[in-house]
Amino acid sequence: MPDALSEFGLIAKYFVPLATHPGALALTDDAAVLEETAGRELIVTADALTAGVHFLPDDPPNLIASKALRVNLSDLAAKGAEPVGYLLALALPQSVDDAWLAEFARGLAEDQKAFGVSLLGGDTTATPGPLTIAITALGRAPRGAMIRRSGAKPGDHVFVSGTIGDAGAGLAILQGKTGGDTDAAFLIGRYRQPTPRVSLGPKLRGIANASLDVSDGLIADLGHIAETSGVRIVVEAEAIPRSAALVRFDPDIVCAATAGDDYEIAFTASSPVTADLPVTCIGRVEPGQGVVLLDREGREIPVIRPGFTHF
Amino acid sequence: MPDALSEFGLIAKYFVPLATHPGALALTDDAAVLEETAGRELIVTADALTAGVHFLPDDPPNLIASKALRVNLSDLAAKGAEPVGYLLALALPQSVDDAWLAEFARGLAEDQKAFGVSLLGGDTTATPGPLTIAITALGRAPRGAMIRRSGAKPGDHVFVSGTIGDAGAGLAILQGKTGGDTDAAFLIGRYRQPTPRVSLGPKLRGIANASLDVSDGLIADLGHIAETSGVRIVVEAEAIPRSAALVRFDPDIVCAATAGDDYEIAFTASSPVTADLPVTCIGRVEPGQGVVLLDREGREIPVIRPGFTHF
Repeated sequence: MPDALSEFGLIAKYFVPLATHPGALALTDDAAVLEETAGRELIVTADALTAGVHFLPDDPPNLIASKALRVNLSDLAAKGAEPVGYLLALALPQSVDDAWLAEFARGLAEDQKAFGVSLLGGDTTATPGPLTIAITALGRAPRGAMIRRSGAKPGDHVFVSGTIGDAGAGLAILQGKTGGDTDAAFLIGRYRQPTPRVSLGPKLRGIANASLDVSDGLIADLGHIAETSGVRIVVEAEAIPRSAALVRFDPDIVCAATAGDDYEIAFTASSPVTADLPVTCIGRVEPGQGVVLLDREGREIPVIRPGFTHF
Repeated sequence: MPDALSEFGLIAKYFVPLATHPGALALTDDAAVLEETAGRELIVTADALTAGVHFLPDDPPNLIASKALRVNLSDLAAKGAEPVGYLLALALPQSVDDAWLAEFARGLAEDQKAFGVSLLGGDTTATPGPLTIAITALGRAPRGAMIRRSGAKPGDHVFVSGTIGDAGAGLAILQGKTGGDTDAAFLIGRYRQPTPRVSLGPKLRGIANASLDVSDGLIADLGHIAETSGVRIVVEAEAIPRSAALVRFDPDIVCAATAGDDYEIAFTASSPVTADLPVTCIGRVEPGQGVVLLDREGREIPVIRPGFTHF
C-alpha cells in the first residue's frame, strides 16, 4: 500500500471521483441508495477476480480494472439488464503503489464513461495475499424482462454475439504458445479486455427465451442453458463465428468452443432471424439433454472438456 | 479445495440451500432479480474480510461466516434499512476442506434465519492466498428514509446501542493479553460474533438525524459523523455503556472508545429521550468540528489514536 495514503486518503483520491451516481453519496456514507420504481426490477450479479488465477499480476492495472468491471457488465447484459452501477471490494497487497492505483482507477473511469455506470460503494482493505477484486454490479430491466437461463424450448434457434475463441488464444499466447504473431495483439486484447455486449443485451428482451454470457467456454455455457431449461442443444461447429486472427492462429474449432473468457452473449430464440442484431445462428434446441457439437457432415465431434472449471 | 467437489458441486451442496429468496433463482442463473416497488428505496453496502487481517485463519468457520454477514447487516441496520439478502464472493485457499465449508454454510444458515435474509448470488473461486470473503448486502427502506451520516445538528443528543469496547478486549485476549479470565469467553464472543442491531435500525427512522455503525472505534466513527455533518461531537466518557465483563477486564475508557469492532449503532437525535429503545445517551452535538471526550469534571481526555485504520 502507498505509505503516504491512509485508507481514507486513497478513497478520496482514486475512488470518490468514480462515484458519479447521486445515490453513491460521494462515498461519504456506509451504503448507497437507489430509488425504486414501480414496474421495474433490479438485477444483481457478483464476480470476483484474483491475481494469478483470473489475470496475471503484472497485467496493466487499467486493464485488470476494466476486465473486473466488464465481466460483471457482461452478466447484466446477458440478462437483458441496463447497467446502473457497481460496488467494489478491493483487497490490496503491499506491492500496490500510487502509480498502480492511479492506472487502476483510470481503467474504471474510462469504462464508466463507455458503459454509463457509476461506482456506488465498496470496501478497500490490505491483504497479505494476491490482489483480489470482487465486484457486485446492479442493473435494471422492466418487470419480468430479465432473460433467464431456463427458458430455452425445443425448436428454438441458438445464437451467439461477436466471435468465439479469441480470448482463449490470447491467454495461450500469454502463457507461451507461439504462432500467428501478427495476430497476437488482437487476441491478447480480447483476453485482457473483453467487450461486454451492453447495448445488445436489452435488445434481446422479448426475443431471447434463454440467455447467458460465455465465460467458461461456449459448449460448457450452452450446457448450463440445456440443463436449466431441460433441453438438448445442437451446435454446428462450422457456424461458430471466429475471427480471421483466430483461424490463422489456431484453426481447432473444439479449442475455440471450449476455451472460455469470451464474454459474448449466447441465447436461444424462437425466430430464426434476429433483424439487425449483430449475432450469428449456430444451432438449434431439441428435446433431450446435453450439448452436441456437429461437424459439416452431421457427425458428432467429441468434446472431452467442455470448458473451464475453477477447481 | 475439496477434491471430490467441483465448483458446481460445491455450490449445489452448500450454497443453493441458502438461496431461499425466490429472486435468487436457486443460484441457477447469472444474476438475482428483485422486484422494485414505488415509494421504496434500495440500500446497498459492501464489506470484505480477509483471513489474518479481519479474523484469525483458525477461527471457527461458522463464526467467520457469521461475522462476514453480520458486519454487512450492521451497516444496513445503521442506515435504517430492513435487510433483504446478500451476495457472497468467496476466494478459497487449498486448505479449505469439506468439513470447513459445511461449518461455514451452517454459520450462514443460522444467521439467515435469525435475521431474515437470503443468499442472492455470488462467486466462488480458488485463491493461492488467504481466505477472502466479500459480501454485498441489500436492504430496503421507505423512500427518503435512509439515515445518513450527514444529518447531525447542533443541539442533537448522541446515542449508542449496546455496550462499547467488548470486542476490542476480546481481540486483545485472542492476541495474548491476560487478566479477567472468567470474562474471556464473553469478550471473545463479542469480537468473533457481533450482534447487528437489525431490529433497532428501522426504529430509528424519523428519530435519528445521523447514524452509522461502530466498526473502526467509537471516537473515530463519531468523527465520521462530525466531519460529514460539519459539527462537533462531545462525548461524556463516563456515559459510554460498558459491560461488567469489560470493566473487570480493563477499565480504560479510552481503550474501549477506540478499539472498534463493536458493530453497535451510534446516532444523533433531536430528542433527549428515545422511548423504549435500548440505547444510551453519551453526549451532544455542538457547532464546530471534531470529537472530544470529556471526563467527569468536564476536562478533555486526550485520544491519541481514535480508532482502527486498515493501512
